Amino acid sequence: MTSIKLALDEIYNLAHDVMLANGCDADNAAALADIICRAERDGSHSHGLFRVPGYVKALLSGKVDGKATPTVKYLTPAVIQVDGNGCFAPLAQSVGLPLLADATSKIGIAALSLVGIHHFAALWPETEFMADRGFVGLACTAYMPMVAPAGSKEALFGTNPISFAWPRPGHSPVVYDMATAAMAMGDVQIAARDGRQVPPGTGLDADGNPSTEPAAIAKGVLLPFGGYKGSAIALMVELLSAGLTGEQFSFEAHNTDNKDGGPPRGGEMIIGMSPDIIAGENWQDHVESFMQKMISLKGVRMPGSRRHKNRLDTGPRQVNAALVNTIKELL
Amino acid sequence: MTSIKLALDEIYNLAHDVMLANGCDADNAAALADIICRAERDGSHSHGLFRVPGYVKALLSGKVDGKATPTVKYLTPAVIQVDGNGCFAPLAQSVGLPLLADATSKIGIAALSLVGIHHFAALWPETEFMADRGFVGLACTAYMPMVAPAGSKEALFGTNPISFAWPRPGHSPVVYDMATAAMAMGDVQIAARDGRQVPPGTGLDADGNPSTEPAAIAKGVLLPFGGYKGSAIALMVELLSAGLTGEQFSFEAHNTDNKDGGPPRGGEMIIGMSPDIIAGENWQDHVESFMQKMISLKGVRMPGSRRHKNRLDTGPRQVNAALVNTIKELL
Repeated sequence: MTSIKLALDEIYNLAHDVMLANGCDADNAAALADIICRAERDGSHSHGLFRVPGYVKALLSGKVDGKATPTVKYLTPAVIQVDGNGCFAPLAQSVGLPLLADATSKIGIAALSLVGIHHFAALWPETEFMADRGFVGLACTAYMPMVAPAGSKEALFGTNPISFAWPRPGHSPVVYDMATAAMAMGDVQIAARDGRQVPPGTGLDADGNPSTEPAAIAKGVLLPFGGYKGSAIALMVELLSAGLTGEQFSFEAHNTDNKDGGPPRGGEMIIGMSPDIIAGENWQDHVESFMQKMISLKGVRMPGSRRHKNRLDTGPRQVNAALVNTIKELL
Repeated sequence: MTSIKLALDEIYNLAHDVMLANGCDADNAAALADIICRAERDGSHSHGLFRVPGYVKALLSGKVDGKATPTVKYLTPAVIQVDGNGCFAPLAQSVGLPLLADATSKIGIAALSLVGIHHFAALWPETEFMADRGFVGLACTAYMPMVAPAGSKEALFGTNPISFAWPRPGHSPVVYDMATAAMAMGDVQIAARDGRQVPPGTGLDADGNPSTEPAAIAKGVLLPFGGYKGSAIALMVELLSAGLTGEQFSFEAHNTDNKDGGPPRGGEMIIGMSPDIIAGENWQDHVESFMQKMISLKGVRMPGSRRHKNRLDTGPRQVNAALVNTIKELL
């Protein structure tokens, strides 16, 4: 793979200009460019420029409205519903997250229900937004059916990521963002390309038999991480992101999507909680004693630490040259 | 194992009388007997009469106050803190859960933070309480350190159960309640007794090496379910039950406990969410279409269905005769 170096503002501008050139208004383009640039900054390449062609496909097919303006509804003082009206998720998030933080700071716990959005990015930007302001963040979204519930051989769940962030004033927050599938389909495809086997439990082949051959799994289904327990977490994600928002379940997203390669319409549930209010004074010291204990264990990596370390580097980033050419052709 | 038959009211009365005889007041005894009887009714033997000797030890050592009266504080209209003042969890729950349901019905999302309690029971009674009233319930609690975070060889997390319930008006709710350890230590001990191996990933021996020998793991540590992803869920449970309540982390519970064999002091976090408010009208039909799709998949068992089926039988239950004798000696 040939790579080229791009400064962070070059990454931002490239993403921004491509979105403008393909039907986004200024607000939508800025929200997308921001999320893409932050992913590249943190080394989350799978959610950075790599997603741009898919974003553009969804704009060109008319599935996503790049000029949509999200609308806000307070269902209660602690439950905010933002309807993206068909936009990509980042703009709806940029509208809703400050309101969620405000409600959480006053009421101690609050929910942001995003509907009418197309989510194609990582989830850590949402939960980190909350943790950076001193709140606990929990976020999840469903996608297209790719994962068979434990015991079955048929895809029903999406890869259904869940993200959790805990604030550590004075330190980077603890943040994770993980698919509840044993492995992301993208990684299965990369293993197939590289001729590597995948671990048992990753997926089933087209006949429903367990397989460690990534090419066979790519034609079959993924399994949830951690057997029936991980399947239960994937089920919770499906219910919170679709059942509780009222938006499409993964199987519905599959049925209604136009298969243009961009993200289907779906929902996202984001919950904020305030340790200041719930735990009260001195929670920072109390939790920090636990964090230090965990960090001191040999072999433990705190979730999010690799991304936060990458972030300290403000210099240019290595980007796949072919991908950059593909994106430039979309300008 | 010799077993005897006890009617459900006999189970209730036995638990109730033993608690009264060992220092509980009427309220505490009734709350405990209720939770124990419901566990036996549903076939959750590990959380039924089996726990009684441990409850009694904690009363006799003075660690738990069987006459404590929980106190309620509204930190905000959506955040209720119930301090058990040293009681067993069930009484604090019976005080707090109706308030949580009420707050959830008004505000759409609410939190019940239980502190100063000793939790020794299952978590599904809490989340099922919410689901039976049309709300989503999420509950978790920490315990003593028994589980090594992924990558390490040292116990830091408790078995850290998490329970989730989704309401299905007209049907039993979907409810799960699972340790975030790969296997409960009780089941490891039973496997050791029966001479059975346990699956890879269950735990490490005393030298920190992976083992499938339950007797070796019982001297070492358990692992989280599902590798580093399950470890991330266990971390969330630890932070929500201790960091967010302000109560003891598992490692603190170990340090302060008197090791009488009963449950240490800890916290529990319970979150309620209202689909009526958040998802709005017709959520029942929308979610039921997903449930029917999932139920139709061959090989899938809906979480909670076995317990709910057991519950339909109102007849007597088979109970370990030796255990009943042990409990009767405590009268």
